[in-house]
Amino acid sequence: MMKKRKIFVSAALLGSATSVTYAQSSVTIYGVLDAAVTYAHASGAGSKFSMDSSGLSSSKFGLIGTEDLGGGLSAGFTLEGDIYPTNGTGGTASVDNTAAATSSLFGRRSFVSLKSKQYGEIRLGRDFSPTYWNLFLFDPFVLLGVGSSSVFTLASAGVTAARTSNSVFYLTPDTLGGFFAEGDYAFGNKPYDLADGTGHDGNFAGLRLGYEGHDLRVAAAMSNVTYKVGDIREINVGGTYDFKIIKAYGLYQNVRVGSSGRIQSTYLLGGMIPVGPDAIRFSVNRLHEHGDSSRDAMLFAVGYIYNLSKRTSLYGTAAFMANHSKAAYAMSQTSGALTPEAGGNDTGVQFGIVTRF
Amino acid sequence: MMKKRKIFVSAALLGSATSVTYAQSSVTIYGVLDAAVTYAHASGAGSKFSMDSSGLSSSKFGLIGTEDLGGGLSAGFTLEGDIYPTNGTGGTASVDNTAAATSSLFGRRSFVSLKSKQYGEIRLGRDFSPTYWNLFLFDPFVLLGVGSSSVFTLASAGVTAARTSNSVFYLTPDTLGGFFAEGDYAFGNKPYDLADGTGHDGNFAGLRLGYEGHDLRVAAAMSNVTYKVGDIREINVGGTYDFKIIKAYGLYQNVRVGSSGRIQSTYLLGGMIPVGPDAIRFSVNRLHEHGDSSRDAMLFAVGYIYNLSKRTSLYGTAAFMANHSKAAYAMSQTSGALTPEAGGNDTGVQFGIVTRF
Amino acid sequence: MMKKRKIFVSAALLGSATSVTYAQSSVTIYGVLDAAVTYAHASGAGSKFSMDSSGLSSSKFGLIGTEDLGGGLSAGFTLEGDIYPTNGTGGTASVDNTAAATSSLFGRRSFVSLKSKQYGEIRLGRDFSPTYWNLFLFDPFVLLGVGSSSVFTLASAGVTAARTSNSVFYLTPDTLGGFFAEGDYAFGNKPYDLADGTGHDGNFAGLRLGYEGHDLRVAAAMSNVTYKVGDIREINVGGTYDFKIIKAYGLYQNVRVGSSGRIQSTYLLGGMIPVGPDAIRFSVNRLHEHGDSSRDAMLFAVGYIYNLSKRTSLYGTAAFMANHSKAAYAMSQTSGALTPEAGGNDTGVQFGIVTRF
Repeated sequence: MMKKRKIFVSAALLGSATSVTYAQSSVTIYGVLDAAVTYAHASGAGSKFSMDSSGLSSSKFGLIGTEDLGGGLSAGFTLEGDIYPTNGTGGTASVDNTAAATSSLFGRRSFVSLKSKQYGEIRLGRDFSPTYWNLFLFDPFVLLGVGSSSVFTLASAGVTAARTSNSVFYLTPDTLGGFFAEGDYAFGNKPYDLADGTGHDGNFAGLRLGYEGHDLRVAAAMSNVTYKVGDIREINVGGTYDFKIIKAYGLYQNVRVGSSGRIQSTYLLGGMIPVGPDAIRFSVNRLHEHGDSSRDAMLFAVGYIYNLSKRTSLYGTAAFMANHSKAAYAMSQTSGALTPEAGGNDTGVQFGIVTRF
Repeated sequence: MMKKRKIFVSAALLGSATSVTYAQSSVTIYGVLDAAVTYAHASGAGSKFSMDSSGLSSSKFGLIGTEDLGGGLSAGFTLEGDIYPTNGTGGTASVDNTAAATSSLFGRRSFVSLKSKQYGEIRLGRDFSPTYWNLFLFDPFVLLGVGSSSVFTLASAGVTAARTSNSVFYLTPDTLGGFFAEGDYAFGNKPYDLADGTGHDGNFAGLRLGYEGHDLRVAAAMSNVTYKVGDIREINVGGTYDFKIIKAYGLYQNVRVGSSGRIQSTYLLGGMIPVGPDAIRFSVNRLHEHGDSSRDAMLFAVGYIYNLSKRTSLYGTAAFMANHSKAAYAMSQTSGALTPEAGGNDTGVQFGIVTRF
Repeated sequence: MMKKRKIFVSAALLGSATSVTYAQSSVTIYGVLDAAVTYAHASGAGSKFSMDSSGLSSSKFGLIGTEDLGGGLSAGFTLEGDIYPTNGTGGTASVDNTAAATSSLFGRRSFVSLKSKQYGEIRLGRDFSPTYWNLFLFDPFVLLGVGSSSVFTLASAGVTAARTSNSVFYLTPDTLGGFFAEGDYAFGNKPYDLADGTGHDGNFAGLRLGYEGHDLRVAAAMSNVTYKVGDIREINVGGTYDFKIIKAYGLYQNVRVGSSGRIQSTYLLGGMIPVGPDAIRFSVNRLHEHGDSSRDAMLFAVGYIYNLSKRTSLYGTAAFMANHSKAAYAMSQTSGALTPEAGGNDTGVQFGIVTRF
């Protein structure tokens, strides 16, 4: 359940008389701003100091609205966009689920929703793909900062790995005893009979199934996005179990890239250890390239989260990337990754602050 | 008169103590999100499934502010931008009233206003052109979705047909017994003595005159925008009359495109039939190309609006485009129109949901 | 101390039942919209009528948030973006403190802040550079409109003259008896070992020292931004003194552009004369090109500010630019300056309206 804070509009230099407003439904403005200083060193590529956004939590701002239609039915919407505090710029989106991305104000999440307590929810628009949720929820570093597993799990999975535009989403209701499912069909919005045969490019289908109990959270997801040069097929399964003294994380993903025929598997083991209001988090990630283990790589990450309040936190993360002979993976940096030579290592340290509203 | 709803800012996981704010003037945040699934078939071009924004109502978000200056005088502003829920991206604007458009956060409406109850209102900035209002108000499909008359009325009328940047608007006060007028002069913002003679390009002048009675709404408008390659001259007249069992629509527009010498006339007849809280709407549109009727076309559209509440609606629309031998008009789709071969037909069906806040 | 106004969300046509929200911390939405009609004449370039944004005050909108962490500590953020009412478009930012600028939603100010009453404030992100504050505060025309000194002080000082991205700012606390200091180190975010030697481009260091008494305000600032083609070094000092019948302004700046070896000095003398709630403002600006006075120029400006309320103002400004034989400076126009021939003069007159929320 979301709690509320007042919002008001400033009138520099002016005081004035009271007035109250009324509502049955509501719109919520929310956001996160996260900035960090990063040091990175990559063998054969030297070193780099930079300021990066979103080392702990995605920098963003958004609006959420809901309207009670009665009879267990409600309508709503979400508009959420990236906003990088390091330079004030926003994010991008692919309008047709193919590579080209355009600047997008609310490119993170943007949909209209119709929700029934009995029958579930339908969303029309752009939102996270079913496969993304597992990658996000089952990585202690939630795909952010130098410890992010995204350099393995998202890199090869294409533009629809994170979000799909032009989508019809269906989410099951909260009445299934902890079990849930999400389906997503997204249109590439192209005429089917294009001369070059790319008329079905960007058509996407995805499904996620899971269970969420008291201490257990587990889910599996799969998706396929159509391209004439070859589909991208993605499956993953993962979970967390809260042993109280430690919350354990596990994730497996397999991605097949039709255009290259390459198949990659990613393995993640990690944990989150509460320290009073704070937490230690760590993960070990392994990428395996099927048929060519010389392209494998491993990523080790450890971090500390120091909570100044429920809304504001300081954090530090250290990560180390070990590439096999032909691999040249770098760790995630919003300012642009420092890529080592083939077979080289990559080291990163990051200190940041995040505030949420 | 606008009604209000509260807005608040979320603080995930945090509850806290009350506080109230005060105001003499106010800022309103508002918006509309509209997404639809569309099927289109065009002879010679095959078929297309897509998700499109704004089939019933323009997807947008905005801020409106007013300040009472006393003595019947008030200052205010409007900032309104397109936001397409299908992909989260925003709209565009021409900053100099010529073809080139740039990404624009508040490209729909953006102006400062000074309003007197006795003498009317002056607006400085970007807003709808006087001619646009008739095209919008006197089309049962309000220029949106597969039934939109915009493919006839806006297509040939150029970038200032919908909005003008760098404009001085004057609107008469509400004290003329239902009669009203709006004038708009917009600057192309170019040095007048440019070597290539385009120094006056984008200078725009428009006027709208009308009457709004109990059941009658009628208005005429004309505009001219200057280009060295040839001015675009636009005149239109239209109206609606509410017979209660049906609201009748009629519109005529004539556009002369100086660069090509082509002249087009558009005729629209339509209606809106209330069905309890819902409505059936339909229109017949004819485009006539002066001097070459082989370029004529007709568009037939019918739709149903099912209101879940005053804010949230479902809708369905079907449309059929009949092109004469040389014409190749397609119906309106935000995802990109499916254009038939010359003389071919175009069919579209659209189902969507819209929510307003 | 900021005053408040309510904000609410409109629901067209809908009234509804009450609800109240709660808060310990707060988010403020604010903005300014300023539009003006400008006439300019430049010898050898003819004349120009245009509509320009921000002749008196920067058109913008933003959000500011603060959270009390207790013990004199508070967290906060600022997000502020340009918004030009003449066409609805927003501003730009350089993401790496080099020339290339990209469209930026909150490109004016965007940072996370941690503030201690005893020890001062740290900001991570993008904000005004230390040298900018003097140029802004000690120009009666605050770097805006046809009277702006920015055509001298900002033109040669490069992209970091106004703002720096990827910055660590430190501001002293308000406990130093009116004395204050601000430091700014900004990262170019580039790998240091780039083959072309540009790895340190965009690294910025700046410092500002000042005193603010009852009627006196004075500050000095300096900065250096690193580029392989040559650093840009900027120093300035200025102040205001309020004699009540007139507020006097003075500013000196020196900029050395390493890439060209050119050195420019700018001198400003000006004043603001209160006339009841209104004001007359004027300035005389001189640009001196070291080693080549044939490139010198002078700018004379006078204006009147008529306040309709504390939030809404009308204004008029007239300016005259006198260029020496080789100089071709134009006055500031957001619609694009009208540049005279070498040694020619430039004249501008501007009338506008601004409203703040």
